[in-house]
Amino acid sequence: MSSFFDGIELPAAADFHVHLRDDRMMEAVTPTIRQGGVDTVFVMPNLVPPVTTVSAALDYKKRLQAIEPNVSYLMSLYLHSSITPDTIREAKRAGIAGVKSYPAGVTTNSSSGVVDYESFYPVFAAMEEVDMVLNLHGEAPPSSSTTTDPMKQITVLNAEEAFLPTLKSLHERFPRLRIILEHCTTAAAVEAVKQCGPNVAGTITAHHLFLTIDDWAGDPINFCKPVAKLPSDRVALLKAATSGDPKFFFGSDSAPHLLSAKKGLSDGGLGAGKCAAGVFTQPNVLGFVLEAFDNALQVGIVKESGLGHERVQGFLGGYGRKFYGVPQATRKVRVKAGGMNVQNVTVGGQSGNEAGMNDTVVTFRSGKPTYAVEWI
Amino acid sequence: MSSFFDGIELPAAADFHVHLRDDRMMEAVTPTIRQGGVDTVFVMPNLVPPVTTVSAALDYKKRLQAIEPNVSYLMSLYLHSSITPDTIREAKRAGIAGVKSYPAGVTTNSSSGVVDYESFYPVFAAMEEVDMVLNLHGEAPPSSSTTTDPMKQITVLNAEEAFLPTLKSLHERFPRLRIILEHCTTAAAVEAVKQCGPNVAGTITAHHLFLTIDDWAGDPINFCKPVAKLPSDRVALLKAATSGDPKFFFGSDSAPHLLSAKKGLSDGGLGAGKCAAGVFTQPNVLGFVLEAFDNALQVGIVKESGLGHERVQGFLGGYGRKFYGVPQATRKVRVKAGGMNVQNVTVGGQSGNEAGMNDTVVTFRSGKPTYAVEWI
Repeated sequence: MSSFFDGIELPAAADFHVHLRDDRMMEAVTPTIRQGGVDTVFVMPNLVPPVTTVSAALDYKKRLQAIEPNVSYLMSLYLHSSITPDTIREAKRAGIAGVKSYPAGVTTNSSSGVVDYESFYPVFAAMEEVDMVLNLHGEAPPSSSTTTDPMKQITVLNAEEAFLPTLKSLHERFPRLRIILEHCTTAAAVEAVKQCGPNVAGTITAHHLFLTIDDWAGDPINFCKPVAKLPSDRVALLKAATSGDPKFFFGSDSAPHLLSAKKGLSDGGLGAGKCAAGVFTQPNVLGFVLEAFDNALQVGIVKESGLGHERVQGFLGGYGRKFYGVPQATRKVRVKAGGMNVQNVTVGGQSGNEAGMNDTVVTFRSGKPTYAVEWI
Repeated sequence: MSSFFDGIELPAAADFHVHLRDDRMMEAVTPTIRQGGVDTVFVMPNLVPPVTTVSAALDYKKRLQAIEPNVSYLMSLYLHSSITPDTIREAKRAGIAGVKSYPAGVTTNSSSGVVDYESFYPVFAAMEEVDMVLNLHGEAPPSSSTTTDPMKQITVLNAEEAFLPTLKSLHERFPRLRIILEHCTTAAAVEAVKQCGPNVAGTITAHHLFLTIDDWAGDPINFCKPVAKLPSDRVALLKAATSGDPKFFFGSDSAPHLLSAKKGLSDGGLGAGKCAAGVFTQPNVLGFVLEAFDNALQVGIVKESGLGHERVQGFLGGYGRKFYGVPQATRKVRVKAGGMNVQNVTVGGQSGNEAGMNDTVVTFRSGKPTYAVEWI
């Protein structure tokens, strides 16, 4: 394997989009944050039920801190009809960092999500006023709810591009509101983020720097929402991530599911159910991003000048910390190319037997060599 | 459910693309042909090892006839470097109906497939001379073998369209050769078939009349190659199937796999493997096509005039029988809307226990009501 970054030292990374779940899954996943070279995470609120109150968010933070105190947890609320401008002001005072908006029904635990953005305008106005970040899951909802014309249907392929007018209209209506288009997957999304003002940014995952549609077609482990798109979209993401443009920074969207759920076996029947959406990258996020950059360098998608330390460190944390207004990293890690093989995570507390599909979370690129991370 | 065809009588359908497999899978699947309202099938040769000799094809036919003698089996050879013009002449004398070409590596059991069409020109010339059908799996092979330029890569989405120039060039070079573009999935493929002469036809499956990309994203049961494409492509297929154009006729590409293989559990490890490609429709093919037409009528994709008996019967067998030069149906079936629920198929001979993932083939639209078929 190529190893452009072998042996280098980097500031601890920040991961501005993580799913840490709750209960035994949380207990298994939270300790892997630092394994992945990360000391700061922005935590998604799509628990069951969703985190819609300040007290629920603060309780959740305490549960996470009890598992791993050496990580800084930036908490978020789940945008929901129960959230008012007063909730926003209370959240700001409590140090909550953002509000996540899920369109109803587009991904894991999003059934309580947003149907109509207009009804949230007073909430967005309060967020703009107190300077709180709006985190958008940027996909238009499935077309069954919007049109019966089969020529205009929203699919997993065009759902992100179809959402971009909503991003632009929110930005126009609330020009000082800080907005993040989460997990950009298309060249169109990258372009839309660029065209907005400096208070609109986009996060990019590790797995979308690797995957295209062929990688998840028939492979539940690589299936997530938004789905990985075309090779040309992947190129656009790699170029954005190495562009030195502070509007683009890392958010893994690491999304753990038990293997049985990834395979659609947890429907209680014969096992012919649908696969849970989400790629789990947490234990190796830093290594995965560096590997993706290695690969891009090797095939000429990016040049060495795109992989200067300033740009890489900016993407991996510097730009995001600045956007969220949190301190820059003080701790460092050293990375070693091919220094480890990717391991799965075992979720405890269920069966006493050898780890099987009901207590294993399969990590992206499981078994493959990747960068080892050492805290220094 | 809508039921435009409730109670009508139809000639026995012909299914010009079936996978009947071998051994215990063959024994489970072959009896479902007539359940699906079909009396004539064109049998795919992608066994392991592939059917590359006339004697292997005739032996296979005998095994099928022993299971269900009341079906007419049109046999095929697997295009392979061992096939010569002499093989073609021998095959013609033996009554073999076609030669199937799989590009290497594109779908189930295609590893022995075609890398370079030019090396087969003498074979195609012999086929043209003796008037034998060439059946094309019309997908360009994965791009790793053709380009490293990520902007020009072949994906599961554009693989069919990227193959169409090959179809056209084969048609130009062998203008009298009868060619079928199997399992058309795109508007582009429909258009290409139309533009060729009358000895070029296209088959259309039942499941591609239902599915689009969102239906197989995260659902291994609906995953097949070629993958179902966009809503606009599905519309083009429905319009072609109801157009009365004899260039388009039914071939189900019914492809049975054990549920464990569909779920990617048969890799011997934890169960994190890839899903087998293929949708199984055999026991209900006629009902599925009628249902798809019902749905298309309901949302206005086709008009009642597109569902005249002549067109529907032509698509379901008349046009294909004429293309292959086999007799028109003499037997009839009567269909009853909602007369049954779709059942899975149990494969015998393995375990003595209740049917599980290792002895069940899940049928498309399992459990849903569909047309019942009665032979009269």
